[in-house]
Amino acid sequence: MNAVELIERKRDGGRLSDAEIAWLIDGYVADRVADYQMAAMAMTIYLHGLDDAELAAWTGAMLHSGEVFDLSEIDRPKIDKHSTGGVGDKVSIPLAPMVAACGVAVPMMSGRGLGHTGGTLDKLESIPGMEVRLDGSQISTVIKKCGFVMAGQTDNLVPADRKLYALRDATGTVPSIPLIASSIMSKKLAEDLDGLVLDVKVGSGAFMTDLAHARLLASTMVGIGANHGVPVVALLTAMDQPLGNTVGNSLEIAESVELLRGSGPPDLLEVTLELGSRMLALAGIENGTETLQRVVADGRAFELLLKMVELQGGDPGVLADPSLLPTAPQTMEVTATHTGFVGRCDAKAIGVAAMRLGAGRELKEDKIDHAVGITLLAKVGDPVEAGQPLARIHYRDTVDPAAVESAFSVSESPVPSHQIILEEIR
Amino acid sequence: MNAVELIERKRDGGRLSDAEIAWLIDGYVADRVADYQMAAMAMTIYLHGLDDAELAAWTGAMLHSGEVFDLSEIDRPKIDKHSTGGVGDKVSIPLAPMVAACGVAVPMMSGRGLGHTGGTLDKLESIPGMEVRLDGSQISTVIKKCGFVMAGQTDNLVPADRKLYALRDATGTVPSIPLIASSIMSKKLAEDLDGLVLDVKVGSGAFMTDLAHARLLASTMVGIGANHGVPVVALLTAMDQPLGNTVGNSLEIAESVELLRGSGPPDLLEVTLELGSRMLALAGIENGTETLQRVVADGRAFELLLKMVELQGGDPGVLADPSLLPTAPQTMEVTATHTGFVGRCDAKAIGVAAMRLGAGRELKEDKIDHAVGITLLAKVGDPVEAGQPLARIHYRDTVDPAAVESAFSVSESPVPSHQIILEEIR
Repeated sequence: MNAVELIERKRDGGRLSDAEIAWLIDGYVADRVADYQMAAMAMTIYLHGLDDAELAAWTGAMLHSGEVFDLSEIDRPKIDKHSTGGVGDKVSIPLAPMVAACGVAVPMMSGRGLGHTGGTLDKLESIPGMEVRLDGSQISTVIKKCGFVMAGQTDNLVPADRKLYALRDATGTVPSIPLIASSIMSKKLAEDLDGLVLDVKVGSGAFMTDLAHARLLASTMVGIGANHGVPVVALLTAMDQPLGNTVGNSLEIAESVELLRGSGPPDLLEVTLELGSRMLALAGIENGTETLQRVVADGRAFELLLKMVELQGGDPGVLADPSLLPTAPQTMEVTATHTGFVGRCDAKAIGVAAMRLGAGRELKEDKIDHAVGITLLAKVGDPVEAGQPLARIHYRDTVDPAAVESAFSVSESPVPSHQIILEEIR
Repeated sequence: MNAVELIERKRDGGRLSDAEIAWLIDGYVADRVADYQMAAMAMTIYLHGLDDAELAAWTGAMLHSGEVFDLSEIDRPKIDKHSTGGVGDKVSIPLAPMVAACGVAVPMMSGRGLGHTGGTLDKLESIPGMEVRLDGSQISTVIKKCGFVMAGQTDNLVPADRKLYALRDATGTVPSIPLIASSIMSKKLAEDLDGLVLDVKVGSGAFMTDLAHARLLASTMVGIGANHGVPVVALLTAMDQPLGNTVGNSLEIAESVELLRGSGPPDLLEVTLELGSRMLALAGIENGTETLQRVVADGRAFELLLKMVELQGGDPGVLADPSLLPTAPQTMEVTATHTGFVGRCDAKAIGVAAMRLGAGRELKEDKIDHAVGITLLAKVGDPVEAGQPLARIHYRDTVDPAAVESAFSVSESPVPSHQIILEEIR
């Protein structure tokens, strides 16, 4: 086999066998296939795609490029959730302990934020002492003790994806459905799961801004799961405006605690319950919504979160009293210029404004300021009076309120509130 | 400017400006643009092409990546010929002195053989002492003294092409018309020419096996010339069977000498005169065919070849008496199995057989045996009797006559001889 021959075949619209794909990915990780060859191959895939069998093989070769978790000692069903990323999307933090409290193991491998989107690991690191870099045996131990874990990918998990992702980032081959789908699914399948629920975000604040592409990505990932014997359910959910009322790390931890204490914003609750009930269904538990509401009401879900934080070195005290979380030294409010109804609260604009405050990273190397962020005081459909606050900006030294103001528009006529659960694909 | 943005634009079917193309090529030579980025770009160009303006800018950026000859001291018109390569194609060797003898300067930069195709430089090196690696000032001196030169590209000529060609070779992006056309034309335009004649070979022994692709390559190169103010004329010529009766380095030098002494095979003479008369026409000399025949008949063309060889350190004695050229120790003949007419004498099969004998290179690093090769004793259309020799194989240690036999087929009914000049594109 040689790389040029395989590139030429894909270039000309042909297909690769399972063995050829395994040879290519293994060779890339072992530096037998050069970066420039993989770059040419990635561009052929961007332009010509991969068929279902190729995609299953590609994902399989990626997932076997490194360590694959063995969670066979855990006798509960193991179900994870993955979101394609958005603004204010803190769902994982309340969701994982809620589902774990219902008797399901949740090995939740999470990521960091980049650009206008936040990352669960960054949010968790608002909690003093919290350690999210765990090795395989620590991950297994935490799951055994509290039913779930929230950690970053280990260094040995899917090394092919780390290498390929960096290459795609430098070669204009990131937004390719098969390459995105195999990247996500290889990491999830390496977690030794019994089922997976995907939250595919759609809208201005999401990676996929239109429904057609989001649907294609979701069905591609569901197909990869089926080819690997793992049931996958995907929800397409709206990301036109931020999820919940907070954007920024400490603020989102506090909002997650609120949800686990039985309050919290309705859109965040809705997405959490919809995803959670599907996770439970994959584990064979019916009436998921009621079961989830019960473990919130009786405090068991919150207790599990405290336990996980403690197991991972964090201070559970700041969850019991979120006012102890890092707090920005200054705040200011952005107000409505006229009376009407909020017509737009743009997720991407709010995400970029939060990133600029220091809540996110413009470049991978940037440091996060956990204290800063934005609280939304009105969302799409809400009636507002001229002068009424629309958002509160939590900042350290400098602030550009215009960036937040421009995310909002207020219309004179009533605006229906947005539907949040758009579609289910299984 | 950044490489990813430019790759994305071409990926999505957009176009690049002249400044963007110059930035990309300069950056690639300077290692600011990575190999893997250029590989992704080359694949987008393979799949989406370049428009005329992009192609002119791409070629211009390549040609300005290194030294550009300044032949302004030479007051004759400067015209070169370039062939896309074939089997038995020794045209350059008689052609350059013939055209020079008519008063035109011919700065003939030539290449080496690879695979089944031969290279002019390898053929010239059959002559003991012959030096084809000249620097810019040596090239200029030889042209001033005898009106032409035959040498390899200098190291500083179009370094972008050397780097890009190696990358294309490793990334499945060689057979792209705009990339081939800009590679050839950047090197030719760097020779400070007043005109260029292209010999685009078509057929089994050529890079382009079908007429449509050859026509497209030819018109693309003619267009690049026009955009750079250099008149270019292209002939499409047949390469179904080898050109002339010899394949192999010493054998082809001897056949070139024959042609310059007024004999030689008719197909070789026809192609030489057709290309030569077009070179003369570009220099403003009419009645080219008669003029060329005159400088052969009066011995001036052959004299110039002897002079050039001497100026470049070679032994002209072996041209005066070609039996002094390196000779293979053994020969054997391949014969017709039945009576009829030669229907096929496959250029690629003969080229591969000659390469296996040692006349060519399978890999770039391989050494050439100048003595070995194949003499064709019958060509397409010739009547043959059973047992009559079809070809003579000149070999050193081992020989595989079946490889040569299989290049021939003999048909029972008469076969028309092939047309050799197929089309002219200007």
